This record gives sequence, structure tokens and C-alpha cells, in this order.
Amino acid sequence: MRRSDMGDPMNEIPEVVIQRLPLYLRTLSALDAEGVTVVSSQDLGERLQVTPAQIRKDLSYFGRFGKQGRGYRVPDLIRELRLILGLGREWEMVLLGMGRLGWAVAGYPGFAQHGFKVVACFDADPQLIGKTAGPLVIQDISALAATIQQHGIQIGIVAVPAAAAQQVVDQLVACGVRGILNYAPTAPRVPPHVWVQNIDPAVALQAMTYHLSQRKPARRPAGRAPA
Amino acid sequence: MRRSDMGDPMNEIPEVVIQRLPLYLRTLSALDAEGVTVVSSQDLGERLQVTPAQIRKDLSYFGRFGKQGRGYRVPDLIRELRLILGLGREWEMVLLGMGRLGWAVAGYPGFAQHGFKVVACFDADPQLIGKTAGPLVIQDISALAATIQQHGIQIGIVAVPAAAAQQVVDQLVACGVRGILNYAPTAPRVPPHVWVQNIDPAVALQAMTYHLSQRKPARRPAGRAPA
Repeated sequence: MRRSDMGDPMNEIPEVVIQRLPLYLRTLSALDAEGVTVVSSQDLGERLQVTPAQIRKDLSYFGRFGKQGRGYRVPDLIRELRLILGLGREWEMVLLGMGRLGWAVAGYPGFAQHGFKVVACFDADPQLIGKTAGPLVIQDISALAATIQQHGIQIGIVAVPAAAAQQVVDQLVACGVRGILNYAPTAPRVPPHVWVQNIDPAVALQAMTYHLSQRKPARRPAGRAPA
Repeated sequence: MRRSDMGDPMNEIPEVVIQRLPLYLRTLSALDAEGVTVVSSQDLGERLQVTPAQIRKDLSYFGRFGKQGRGYRVPDLIRELRLILGLGREWEMVLLGMGRLGWAVAGYPGFAQHGFKVVACFDADPQLIGKTAGPLVIQDISALAATIQQHGIQIGIVAVPAAAAQQVVDQLVACGVRGILNYAPTAPRVPPHVWVQNIDPAVALQAMTYHLSQRKPARRPAGRAPA
């Protein structure tokens, strides 16, 4: 089914399309950093390992971008994608669990450049509470609700062990958080108004070993993104 | 199109199906740990936020599982999925980049339980080389090719800064690595016989903020997995 170029009044844009937009943005930002000002859907597709037709179709859900035969203006498409993805603002986040992974997440340099900011971090371990992680002081989890309310926070990052994840997620949801970035190796249950993105390297590896195990050496079909 | 229950002789199983199998396995393993021995596609779907029909269709690519009206035997389905995903063996991996993220990855407890093992780690910084990260000694990147050859390694983990990622990926590919788990916030280019899985929390967050930014409060449609 071909959708209208006027966007999608039914809000039925497939989730796989939404999930691809940040990848487009990431590649366009790399092109921009290289000084590239115009890119064809052919070139963009080659970088992303997606067909040019797929790119044009994905973008058509959100309006008209680029001109036939002229390619996309990189800064314009970046600006549009940032608006579509809700990146025209800063998103404050809380971080739960300050073990080794939590420390790495707290110091991750890739958040700030996209407007994401960890403003408070929490742990249940009395030995960690009060320690500083960069500019942050690790707080007792009992302070979570007040912090979320005070900052109007909508996103929580979960970096606790798997066994504690569901409980922590339930707390975040009870505090009004609507988006959860989950590093715990488990899929937490959430009500329908809450969005979860799971970061699980073992899951990513398992989809890879499927291909590595095929008798015939795996060859990605052209136009199919591997990741 | 309905596929045969005999599997897919054309090897045209959609990549999205492959990507879902590890999520099924993760949830089934959690059920197994809880002592659950049989699960209906209804219950499994509820946990995964996927429709029961989707689960049955995904599994039908690989043969017959479960009996109509009786549900799936959890240990059997776990064993089958592990075989399909190539998890009936140990996968040795090399880790490149021993900054804060590399240290967290080296100590990640979720690898071992699935048969993944980091057997060597590398950095280009002379100040890091020779230091120990758990049981591993950080090696100079110049030793990479010999290590990969000696162990017959097929998977490399990239935890270097974005600016160094493409070069490191090229080195891994030149050494014969066929699967790359990439933590650098960039999408490296690889030849068609190489599979990349990108772990990028900013990309995951951006797909989430799309939904959080919609004027109507986002509500996940039933049966659509958020992540």
C-alpha cells in the first residue's frame, strides 16, 4: 500500500520504519561531518545497506524530501529527521544501577550530542550511595520519585542485574516514566503506554551466530540491513 | 505468503524473524528458570508483546513446534531455538578498545551463559597494553591477526571511539572475522559476507522519543513489540 505524502493521519507508521529513522540520521550526520551537502538515495542506501527504494518509501510517510534526480540536501534532511524524532529539545533521564555497566552508561559520550542527559543516578547499595560519578552523586533509590517529579523526567535507564530489573521498571512506571532503556538481560513487562528499548548484546550476537552457522557462507542480500 | 513447515529451502527467512528468535529464547529461558514447563503462544506473546499468530508464523519457518491447543514444551523449544541460532557451541570473540566501555563489555556477565567468551582484548594505547582486565591481558593491536588465526575466531567486538571504528572494522575483516558487534556510535561499512550488529543506545533512545513526542499519548498497538 502506498501512503499519502501528507503524512499518516492514522498514526499507523510501521514500527520498523520508526526504528530505521535514527540510523538514517546517524549516517546523515556522519556525511555532514565529512562536509557532504547533497546525497542521493543510492549513496545513502549503500552506506546503510538498505535499498534506495526503501529509503524513499520510509521518508514518504513523513512528507516530501529531496527532489527527483537531485538527491537529498543533507542539513535539511537532518533537521527534518530530528524534528520527526522529537530531538528538538533536551531529554533528561534517570539512571538506575551503578555497577560497572552503570558507570560506563553514565559516562557514555554519545548521549549529549543528541540532547540526552543523565541528570540523576541511583543505586540500592549503601556502599555506593553518596559517591560521585562524574558530575552526579549516586542517590538512594528512595529519592527516585521526588527526582522524577521535580525534573519532569520521562525516560529511565535500567542498568541493574536481571533479577532486580522488573521491580525497578515497575517503580519507574509508577513514577510516570514513559520510556525505558533497558540494559538488564531480561524483557521487562510494562503497560501499553510505556515504550521499552532493550540493549542486550547477547541477543544481538545470537542473531549473528544464526548467520555464521549456516552451511553456506552467509551473504547479505543486497538492500537488507544486517542491523 | 504462508511458508512450508519444512523450513525454507531458499534460505529466504526474513531478517526480522531471525532478529526475534533470540528474544523468544530469552523469554523462554526466564520461564524455564521460573519452573514453567509448558507455555501457550498466547502467554508467550503476552510476555513478548507480540501476537500469538506472529510467534506461530515465525516458528513455522523452522519446522513444527508444539501441538495445537497444548502449547509449547519450554525445554524442548529452548533446545530447538539454541540449535537454530547456532548456540550449540562456544563462540570465542576478540574485543577491541579498552576504554571505560571496553572494560564494562569485558566483564559483562550475560555472555558466558550463552556460550560467548571474550578470549583476547586489544588497544592501541601503550599505557593500557600489558594491564589485566579480569583474566585477560590487554594486547597491542599488532597481535590481532595472530590471535584470530590461532583461535579461529569469527566474531569481533568493537568498543573504540567512533573515529577509529572503520579502521578497526577493516582490520577485523582482513583477519577473516565474519561477525562484528559494534558499540561505536557509527555504522561501519563491511563486505556482504560480514554481519554487523550495532549497539547504539542513542539510536534506541531516538526511536523512543519519536513516540514520546506524539501529540496523542503513544499507546503501543497490541501485538507490536516495542523493542
